[in-house]
Amino acid sequence: MILRFSSFFLFLLISANTFAQSQEDSLFIRRIFDQALTDSRCYQVLEHLCTKVPSRLSGSPGAAQAVAYMLQVMKEEKFDVSSLQPVMVPHWVRGQESRVEVRQKGAPVKKLQSCALGGSIGGKVSAGVIEVQQFEDLEKLGEAGIKGKIVFFSRPMEPRHIHTFEAYGGCVDQRWAGPSKASKYGAVATLVRSVSLREDEFPHTGSMAYDSLYPKIPALAISTADASWLSAALKKNSSLRLEVESFSKLLPDTLSHNVVAQLTGSAKPNEFLITGGHLDAWDNGQGAHDDGAGCVQSMEAIRILHELGYKPRHSMRAVMFMNEENGLRGGKRYAELADSLQEKHIYAIETDRGGFTPRGFYIDSDNPETVAKIAAYRSLLEPYGLHDFKKGGGGADIGPLKKQGTVCLGYIPDSQRYFDVHHAASDTFDKVNKRELELGAASIAALLYLLDKYSE
Amino acid sequence: MILRFSSFFLFLLISANTFAQSQEDSLFIRRIFDQALTDSRCYQVLEHLCTKVPSRLSGSPGAAQAVAYMLQVMKEEKFDVSSLQPVMVPHWVRGQESRVEVRQKGAPVKKLQSCALGGSIGGKVSAGVIEVQQFEDLEKLGEAGIKGKIVFFSRPMEPRHIHTFEAYGGCVDQRWAGPSKASKYGAVATLVRSVSLREDEFPHTGSMAYDSLYPKIPALAISTADASWLSAALKKNSSLRLEVESFSKLLPDTLSHNVVAQLTGSAKPNEFLITGGHLDAWDNGQGAHDDGAGCVQSMEAIRILHELGYKPRHSMRAVMFMNEENGLRGGKRYAELADSLQEKHIYAIETDRGGFTPRGFYIDSDNPETVAKIAAYRSLLEPYGLHDFKKGGGGADIGPLKKQGTVCLGYIPDSQRYFDVHHAASDTFDKVNKRELELGAASIAALLYLLDKYSE
Repeated sequence: MILRFSSFFLFLLISANTFAQSQEDSLFIRRIFDQALTDSRCYQVLEHLCTKVPSRLSGSPGAAQAVAYMLQVMKEEKFDVSSLQPVMVPHWVRGQESRVEVRQKGAPVKKLQSCALGGSIGGKVSAGVIEVQQFEDLEKLGEAGIKGKIVFFSRPMEPRHIHTFEAYGGCVDQRWAGPSKASKYGAVATLVRSVSLREDEFPHTGSMAYDSLYPKIPALAISTADASWLSAALKKNSSLRLEVESFSKLLPDTLSHNVVAQLTGSAKPNEFLITGGHLDAWDNGQGAHDDGAGCVQSMEAIRILHELGYKPRHSMRAVMFMNEENGLRGGKRYAELADSLQEKHIYAIETDRGGFTPRGFYIDSDNPETVAKIAAYRSLLEPYGLHDFKKGGGGADIGPLKKQGTVCLGYIPDSQRYFDVHHAASDTFDKVNKRELELGAASIAALLYLLDKYSE
Repeated sequence: MILRFSSFFLFLLISANTFAQSQEDSLFIRRIFDQALTDSRCYQVLEHLCTKVPSRLSGSPGAAQAVAYMLQVMKEEKFDVSSLQPVMVPHWVRGQESRVEVRQKGAPVKKLQSCALGGSIGGKVSAGVIEVQQFEDLEKLGEAGIKGKIVFFSRPMEPRHIHTFEAYGGCVDQRWAGPSKASKYGAVATLVRSVSLREDEFPHTGSMAYDSLYPKIPALAISTADASWLSAALKKNSSLRLEVESFSKLLPDTLSHNVVAQLTGSAKPNEFLITGGHLDAWDNGQGAHDDGAGCVQSMEAIRILHELGYKPRHSMRAVMFMNEENGLRGGKRYAELADSLQEKHIYAIETDRGGFTPRGFYIDSDNPETVAKIAAYRSLLEPYGLHDFKKGGGGADIGPLKKQGTVCLGYIPDSQRYFDVHHAASDTFDKVNKRELELGAASIAALLYLLDKYSE
């Protein structure tokens, strides 16, 4: 009987304690969101980055300026440490604007909106076109159907996916691997329908990689509107010819940097919670959503905790990775340094899905307990519109940390608008809503706070 | 024992049945979203409405064209009934562009971006300015502080609200009632800081109403950027004077129409489920989010069910209400007609919070069972991003139906961007994302389907 009473009493005590803790967390998270919505700096920093720094593809002068600017902002914020991590990066340049033209007898020249794919070589070809939607089609067509031709990959994104990243995943193979798949059968160039859900005039670039077994050929994207036009035109006239010219090339690797801001932990300074985005961006736009938003949100997240006087137990970092778009050298370098300096990274949160209204977090762990533990934070974040806490990928830049056992997390904003502007000239600052950006930064700050407080 | 077995068996049967039903619903809702995302017409109709029909404030030639256009689209869709409901509406006109100017000795004229508030009178005044944030301030200042002056209401929207409509609710009294509150103490005109969370150059209009006890005075909004400028300028020089000129006036009431599309019910044709938005829009913009989006979503919702071959048990209607913005005559007229024709309206869903990504539905009922019943549909709609099913307001246009016992529901899209463009020239078609609009239409169609199927 006594035992029963004490158990009951203990239960009450624990419940009361849990309740008080949850109350305390709830109040602190409210302060995080208040701070983000009334006194954040991320929108203004993003504006500068997008409109005052020229395009910042890895290796470019703009990338160097972006590194210098972000370091300057970090220093103004008086974080405990603000530093650069040197990293050698690929230096691909687009050169002058590419040209894709349809020349038909008796008709005016039709210019298709195009751009070279990242990593592709330049060149000039004039040839007939063969349209395919699947790699299997290439095999069926064989050399007989492909040799000497321009292969046009036209499989559109599947609009039925609610989460648009699934539609992207189902399409991007054409861009990434299409050129060599076609070159294998003697294609002279490839065009890919821009990987976008929006029908418009903007060509969307992005990385491709050559398979060293086959000759390198020029590889370009054309706008979704022009891709639809070309498909229709080929139905009418399958012998239609295109002139394709691209001027891109790969220069020698260049020195660049990851940019890192740190709040040093009070209890475990050599254990880390980091949040990051990538500072490099495709050269054809401002890289506002991809991934200027993620960079400024990462910095804002630790800035909010700093401003609120929160003293993290573990060290916290905001990392602006270099070269996510065409090499991932920054992410790899960061993990190498973490290993060699024996910095134990417990959690890493990536924000690289755009600066849209918050929806939740992916948890990249095979341990159901870890997933359940983080998913339990949902109740504290639902009042701010975050409902999705589920197993899923963290992100490319933090991926290399998984080797050392880091639990990776991916910030999930609403995905509907992302691929409208992804890798295109339309990814500009005016597409970012200030509040949506701030709510994302606050969401990440809240998760950092919870992970810091409840991690052993 | 036999009884026990049968009970258990019955339980299994019911469970199996419930499961099968839920499976069937889940599959049908998937078809609704597939249809919306692959073969909807709402985005294209919205584009026409926004860009081809001139501004459509109640009583204007544009409103008449909008009515004709929407009726034509309904007829093309071959709904069972497409009809107009005549309704007399107020006919307020803005006249030429208003003028708010600061003239200070030795300084160039500073023009503030302004617009007359809906319902306000025109006039020209030149006077000093007194800034207030609360109506109580007016009382404290009294005639001594206000008489002969222009009252400037400058209370901004509170950014800390996560749901921005709460911030709107905490601010809009200044616009609606401010002019007469100030006139009571002898003010000669009022300016209100635009009710927007975004700091920019667009003045946001909206309705105001005069209290017949006090003289009518010109009432205008100025942009948030200019409101911030004016507050700062008044701190430096409290005797600063403004010239205000507005040309707006109220003309005699005009004949207009609600536009109604109907699918006639197979089992209960005289019981109705309706969904609606308002076709009128402020004259300074295209009314894309407010509320072109709601109109085209309503029509799309019943169109999707029609296209999928769904035969509703109850009659379903998409209603394009006229005159929500400055009179609510269409909503009132609709309810009067429903009463006089003894049309029993069971449920009404309003969509008038913008065409943004879906979040859920408000349930406007004091009956906890009704709220719980509809909230239980959440599990079927969560896969599409709808998590918010809670007690809340349905909407202005369907409000008059509550008298006859109709359960009103309000579609909730994400609210972060709405007040950036609300009632401003920036509320244009390009601000609407096709997928977000379509997902909203599908969400409403899904709810209509469930309500139709499970209502007795």
